[in-house]
Parts: sequence; structure tokens; C-alpha cells
Amino acid sequence: MRDATPGVVNLDLSLPVWDEFFTIAPLILVGSRDPVGTANIAPKHMGLQMGWENYYGFVCSPNHRTQQNIIRHGSFTVSFTRPNQIIVTNLAASPRWDDDTKPGLQAIPTRPATTVDGVLVENCYLWLECELERTIDGLGPNSLVLGKIVAASAATELIESLALEAKEQGVQYLLHLWKEAGALQALREDLAADFEGEDPLLPEPSHEAEETRRRLLAAADTLGVRKRLVDHDEDYVRLYQTEVNESFKHLGLVEPYQ
Amino acid sequence: MRDATPGVVNLDLSLPVWDEFFTIAPLILVGSRDPVGTANIAPKHMGLQMGWENYYGFVCSPNHRTQQNIIRHGSFTVSFTRPNQIIVTNLAASPRWDDDTKPGLQAIPTRPATTVDGVLVENCYLWLECELERTIDGLGPNSLVLGKIVAASAATELIESLALEAKEQGVQYLLHLWKEAGALQALREDLAADFEGEDPLLPEPSHEAEETRRRLLAAADTLGVRKRLVDHDEDYVRLYQTEVNESFKHLGLVEPYQ
Ligand SMILES: Cc1cc2nc3c(=O)[nH]c(=O)nc-3n(C[C@H](O)[C@H](O)[C@H](O)COP(=O)(O)O)c2cc1C
Ligand SMILES: Cc1cc2nc3c(=O)[nH]c(=O)nc-3n(C[C@H](O)[C@H](O)[C@H](O)COP(=O)(O)O)c2cc1C
Repeated sequence: MRDATPGVVNLDLSLPVWDEFFTIAPLILVGSRDPVGTANIAPKHMGLQMGWENYYGFVCSPNHRTQQNIIRHGSFTVSFTRPNQIIVTNLAASPRWDDDTKPGLQAIPTRPATTVDGVLVENCYLWLECELERTIDGLGPNSLVLGKIVAASAATELIESLALEAKEQGVQYLLHLWKEAGALQALREDLAADFEGEDPLLPEPSHEAEETRRRLLAAADTLGVRKRLVDHDEDYVRLYQTEVNESFKHLGLVEPYQ
Repeated sequence: MRDATPGVVNLDLSLPVWDEFFTIAPLILVGSRDPVGTANIAPKHMGLQMGWENYYGFVCSPNHRTQQNIIRHGSFTVSFTRPNQIIVTNLAASPRWDDDTKPGLQAIPTRPATTVDGVLVENCYLWLECELERTIDGLGPNSLVLGKIVAASAATELIESLALEAKEQGVQYLLHLWKEAGALQALREDLAADFEGEDPLLPEPSHEAEETRRRLLAAADTLGVRKRLVDHDEDYVRLYQTEVNESFKHLGLVEPYQ
């Protein structure tokens, strides 16, 4: 192996690479049905939307009751935790007692799932109810549990943010998109002038960019935030200039763009 | 299906559920080798650590060149983007021209991978080099591309944050853990007093909690931040009190804990 590039460290693969740095992960609570009929809940951090259709998967140890339950019972639930739900998560992770129960689970507020036989954890922000599609073994000792989503529900706020109702979350998102669109537009015009009307870098045709800005303006009208839209946010433009210059350097164009 | 709980909206499953809300996702750039030998790069947002060992997977359309390349060539690279790498991502997502090339790729700064035959995108914060383990079809029309990690590298800062060197990221993380440990400790003592010395809620034995606090104090010494450690952050304690009360209500204990 060559020496690493400056500023880059080669990682040691005799260890799991995941132990060598911090990263973020979603924290979900998976609900399953114990053999004796009680609800089981366990935290998992390796969950993923599996494609653009209604599939969800998570990585699980085959030694965990969760996976055994799901294979036997054929279904599971997923509750997506909020940052303050550390106690509930802690309770769900508690070890089993000698009689094979997890008494801490009784303190977790739940409601019945609507479509599969199972429970959902209250106060979360998103819930999926899944039928087991299959388990995929061979991730070292671990498996991927793949589910088909057969019902889903969400906290009202989560949906409202998508509907771009006049909520601060929607407004912030719009302002962010607007600044990005403005900075890209400024770069595009600038570069096109330098390159005799041809845009040398950005692949998206300029009528698409125009259309994006038109739709953002319409959304801003709906939200009543037009007067907060600023066309050239210098910080954003500078950020993108830096990135363009990286590309220029890479292409052997020595003159920095500014 | 029953009516949804107050504050909860049932989602429409005749659409992909993922179109009904915003969520966060990692943005990676997958590198592969085109049939003619040039490097291909494409953005993906459905990537996941696959277990605690050295596996990584991402969801891909079989219609994309990326997946076809990886199956033919047997390997791929993953570069984890930083928030400002929107132009590079845009270039990597550009459509193919009539001659089947993506000219925008030439403007993306890359360096050769160290172990597999491929390229890594410069200025990212983490890079994986993978051999194809297998593709798993049947996620609707999509597939999961599963790789065994055979080399990995990271930006120096990412590693330094783990080593808890005197960086603000390490300090912030430590302060956060310390506040959580303090709030849990306060709750634990309080509840144990109410329940005649027995801790009714938190499963982790109290010597483990003590050990956590001891290790955090040692880390704080190393970082030189001991004087910023506050034992009882009232906001955290209140947050956890709320959560405990949810559990109490659920258990039928009407007296709120405060
Ligand atoms: C924060 C956190 C994240 C976890 N993530 C996973 C995971 O992604 N996959 C897994 O198999 N176990 C994970 N675990 C461990 C199990 O969920 C845990 O051991 C649980 O008690 C197993 O319970 P069960 O035997 O009832 O299934 C995690 C635990 C915690 C505390
Ligand atoms: C932000 C973003 C995220 C994307 N995420 C994915 C993904 O998770 N899976 C996928 O198959 N395609 C994804 N795509 C689309 C493809 O990567 C894109 O169409 C690419 O041009 C395909 O190129 P290729 O034919 O060279 O593989 C994403 C595109 C963008 C812009």
C-alpha cells in the first residue's frame, strides 16, 4: 500500500473499520413478538431505506431475540426515536433476566400496530410496520433483515414540514435552497461569460436552473417569506468558488476563478 | 386500519412512503470502472455500514452504469462527501452524452485508490475500497450492492476526533456525554431513594454508571476541560424527568416524578 496522501490516514483493517472513527447513524427501535406472546423491543443503529419503493432493512445479530422472533413470526415494527428518547432506548437495550424476560420493557409506552401483530413505541416521529421479506446472512456473523412496509405513520410535524406549511423548518429549508440556487446561478453566469457563452462546468441545462428558481419563488410566496430572499449570499458564492477552483486546478487551468 | 392516534398521520402506501416526508441520508460518491477503462463516479444516498465487520452496502438501480460496472469489474470505491461538495456531486450526477461519456467527471479531483483498481474523490472525509461480495436483487426494481472493505482511509480530523485530541469536536462530545451521565445519575439516585434503595427503571447496574463517569473524568483530564464539567445540567435532568414520567404514566403510576 502506498503512503497516504497528506491529511489522509490509512485505516487498520485488521480491526473493524467502524471502531476507528465516529459517525452518525439513525437510532431505531425494532419491535417483535416473543415466543410467549409478549412484545419485544430492541435498539438498532444500522437501518436503511432499501430503494425508492416500500422496503426497509436493518442489520442484526442472529443471536438476538429480535431476529429469531422476526423469522418465527414473519413481521416486525420500526419506531424512529427522537434525540431525547435515551431512557426508552436504554430500557430496550437492557439484558434479559434469568427467566428470559426484559422487565424494563414494561415501562416503555407503546400502542398497538395497525396492520401487523406488534407494538409501536409512543413519542417517536416515524413508524413502519413490516412483513419479513427475507433475511440475508453472510455479513460476517451478522444478517440483514429485509422487510416490506405494509403500513406507516408519522408525527404530524414531520408531514407538515414536507407540505411546506408556514413552519420555521420549511422556511429554513427554502432559504437554504434559495441561497444555493443563487450561488450556482452567479457562478454559471460568470463562467459562461468567461467561456464565450458556454457553461464549461455545470451539466444541468440553464432552463432547468431557471425552473428551480421559479418554483422556489412560488414556494416562498406560499410561505410568505419573499422579503427574506437575498440573491447573492457571499458566503455561499465563495464556498462554490473554492470548489470550482479545485476542479480548475485538477483540469490544469492554473488561473484561479474569482 | 384504525384511525391514527392524535398527532399521528397514517401514510399512504400506494406511493413510496419515502416521498411523503423529509429525512436525512448520507451522501456518498461511488467510483467504478467503465468498460472502456475510464473512471465513473455517481452519487448515492442509500448507503449503510453492514454489520460490525468490514462490509459496506448501498442500494442501486440495475439500470445505472455503476452497478453494471461493479458486477463486471468486481470492485468499487466509496468517497463520503462533505456538506460543501455540492458541485462535485452535481457533476457526478450529470447525464451521459450521446457518445455515452460523462464529460463533467473530468473536472472532479481524484486520486488513485490504493488497493482496488479505481479512484477516490479528493477533499472527502472518508474513503472505502471494496471488493464486490454480491448483489442482492428484489428490492422492488432495485438492488443492494454489498462490498467487503479491503482498504480504508480517512481525513486526519476524523481520526483526531476519535483520539479525543484537544479539538473542539472531542470537547463538545465529552461535555454532552458528561451532561447525560450526570442527569442519569441524578435520576438514578432520586428514584432509588423513592423505591427503598432499588432502582426501578434503569437497567444498567450502578457500578457501570460509576465506571462511565470515571472514564469521562479521565478523558476530560486529557483534554484539559475539567473546569467546564457541570454536574447537574438542569435542562438535561428535566428532559429525562419528562421521559421517566411518560414511563410512569404508562405503568399506571399516577404521581408525577419531579
Ligand atoms: C445504541 C444501540 C444500538 C444498537 N444497534 C444494534 C444494531 O444495529 N444491530 C444489532 O443487532 N444490535 C444492536 N444493538 C444491540 C441490541 O439491540 C441489544 O443487545 C438488545 O438487547 C438485543 O435484544 P433482543 O435479544 O431482545 O433482540 C444496539 C444497542 C444499542 C444500545
Ligand atoms: C443526491 C443524489 C442521490 C442519489 N442517490 C442514488 C441512490 O441511492 N441509488 C441510485 O441508484 N442512484 C442514486 N442517484 C442517481 C444516480 O447516481 C445518477 O442517476 C447517476 O447519474 C447514475 O450514473 P451511472 O449511470 O454512471 O451509474 C442519486 C442522485 C443524486 C443527485
